Amino acid sequence: MITLAVDCMGGDHGPQVTLAACRRFLEAHEDAQLLLVGQLPQVQALSHARAHAVAASEVVAMDDSVEVALRRKKDSSMRVAIEQVKHGAAHAAVSAGNTGALMATARYVLKTLEGIDRPAIATQIPNARGGATTVLDLGANVDCSAENLLQFAIMGSALVAVLKGEPRPSVGLLNVGEEAIKGSELIKQAAELLRAAGARGDLNFIGNVEGNDIFRGAADIVVCDGFVGNVALKTIEGLASMIGGFMKEEFSRNIFTKFAAIVAYPVLSALKKRMDHRRYNGAALLGLRGLVFKSHGSADALAFEQALVRAYDAARNDLLAQVRAQVARAAPLLAAAETALETTASPGL
Amino acid sequence: MITLAVDCMGGDHGPQVTLAACRRFLEAHEDAQLLLVGQLPQVQALSHARAHAVAASEVVAMDDSVEVALRRKKDSSMRVAIEQVKHGAAHAAVSAGNTGALMATARYVLKTLEGIDRPAIATQIPNARGGATTVLDLGANVDCSAENLLQFAIMGSALVAVLKGEPRPSVGLLNVGEEAIKGSELIKQAAELLRAAGARGDLNFIGNVEGNDIFRGAADIVVCDGFVGNVALKTIEGLASMIGGFMKEEFSRNIFTKFAAIVAYPVLSALKKRMDHRRYNGAALLGLRGLVFKSHGSADALAFEQALVRAYDAARNDLLAQVRAQVARAAPLLAAAETALETTASPGL
Repeated sequence: MITLAVDCMGGDHGPQVTLAACRRFLEAHEDAQLLLVGQLPQVQALSHARAHAVAASEVVAMDDSVEVALRRKKDSSMRVAIEQVKHGAAHAAVSAGNTGALMATARYVLKTLEGIDRPAIATQIPNARGGATTVLDLGANVDCSAENLLQFAIMGSALVAVLKGEPRPSVGLLNVGEEAIKGSELIKQAAELLRAAGARGDLNFIGNVEGNDIFRGAADIVVCDGFVGNVALKTIEGLASMIGGFMKEEFSRNIFTKFAAIVAYPVLSALKKRMDHRRYNGAALLGLRGLVFKSHGSADALAFEQALVRAYDAARNDLLAQVRAQVARAAPLLAAAETALETTASPGL
Repeated sequence: MITLAVDCMGGDHGPQVTLAACRRFLEAHEDAQLLLVGQLPQVQALSHARAHAVAASEVVAMDDSVEVALRRKKDSSMRVAIEQVKHGAAHAAVSAGNTGALMATARYVLKTLEGIDRPAIATQIPNARGGATTVLDLGANVDCSAENLLQFAIMGSALVAVLKGEPRPSVGLLNVGEEAIKGSELIKQAAELLRAAGARGDLNFIGNVEGNDIFRGAADIVVCDGFVGNVALKTIEGLASMIGGFMKEEFSRNIFTKFAAIVAYPVLSALKKRMDHRRYNGAALLGLRGLVFKSHGSADALAFEQALVRAYDAARNDLLAQVRAQVARAAPLLAAAETALETTASPGL
């Protein structure tokens, strides 16, 4: 039996969406049970033999700062859900709450894995091959070192291996060109580390990739620092939303275009389904001593259910043990990198 | 009379496209003349009273390295076009050649303006408001300082002021959140400089913007380092091309979807026109002692003509003098920033 702790209060819509998703999830997964964390009696609205309400008196708002979430809302549904994982009452926690607060709380409550300096956020972006490219980091770390990028690559590989059953997923380093001489100093250092890890067999590193390669599906995993990843993700969201808006406007311009929309409806809905980011909802917080998944704040029931499914799959396939094992396997390389970089940074000491 | 020097050999298609664009441009601009730079007799194929062939024996290939372009192809069409600007024979140069070679050659031949450490590449990205957002830097500088970002903001403001007749265009700093406390150390430093420039009246700085704000049109100008800008631009191109590919596939799936495509044709072509990046072709190389515009390598005649129009507009409105004046006006601030940063970097000296 897999147990997930669900922050039912988080996200733009709260229990209305999360409880509907929980019901659908339970119906489809007979070996799963859910801890519905949140304010009573709200979370008790879902009555199911495999759903159990867990009381949490506070709610982290979507615009609460990390400080407010950590210091002033110690009994928040987000935190109580994560604590279920820490205490072994749940295999994974899922929340649609605000990203900064979720990462900070998860890190505070669960701590990072040995050998990992910074946890990262990994999400899936649909690609032209009909699958999805896993991209990390998506905003948890704005000032990264080359070693951090290597750690992200290792954790991302474990994630994709577990969730897609791909034993040696390919890793690309996001850069401004494919040639090894391109990029910032940081990226060049990271590329060297990744090549070394590839040579040792710790990673399937395929080299530099560019922004458009995310959509070409050139690599299973694309590694970047959190600043670049966040900008890329928000740029993608912005463009997709602009195109969607333009399509709506053009098809509703007059009686003729509305007729065209009716005729084209099956095509447009196939297109919409194909581009549907809800199918890929559920970002993994990697590098912690426990599994936490983050749903998009604006998720509807279908999207939130996907995040639950991803957490369930990760728990069933013991993602945590996989990440731990891969990090341990790469530990000598990470230690060597650290020493090398320290030597470079302070040549006189 | 405005004179443009055109690298007719550059780009994926060479003279076939560039000469067609030159003819259309000349027909629409009676006070312009063109220097058609390239191999003879190819560039002589266009015969027009206001077009003059200028011989250049070599061509920089799209995959030539900067070294090859600079050292081994000293008589390239790209270089000769830029030299026309240096020697005062042309007001601006336009090339669809490879970006790295073009920037390096332009920098070598023309040198940077006083007070500018690094030239930048500024392009326009269509936004939901029906206009375009100017984004810089797009890849010329992968390791930037906070001062570089301030210089980009100043040069971008001059560009938009001149090309759009907007006297105080708004400037946003690309970041991972709107709050001032967000971002990498570099971005926080840059934000401080930009705020100081805003307070002095040198800039209309509106604060941090996020990736999706490029498409919302939240700021006239979005400033970022070249690494982030390049990733964002290529990500945009990748997503747009994937969506375009999906649409083609879905509409050509079977006889019914093909019928739908015919009915929806006017809507789809309106949509295509609206999203048409060709209308925004022509990136400015800013910070040099001369005007150089870069066309997309894959530009067709319509797109290349747009790049010519942008160079023409820039020359007619004396963009160079505007950039020079704005940089001079902000010189005290730049000098102060340099001193402040040097002091921070070496506290003991």
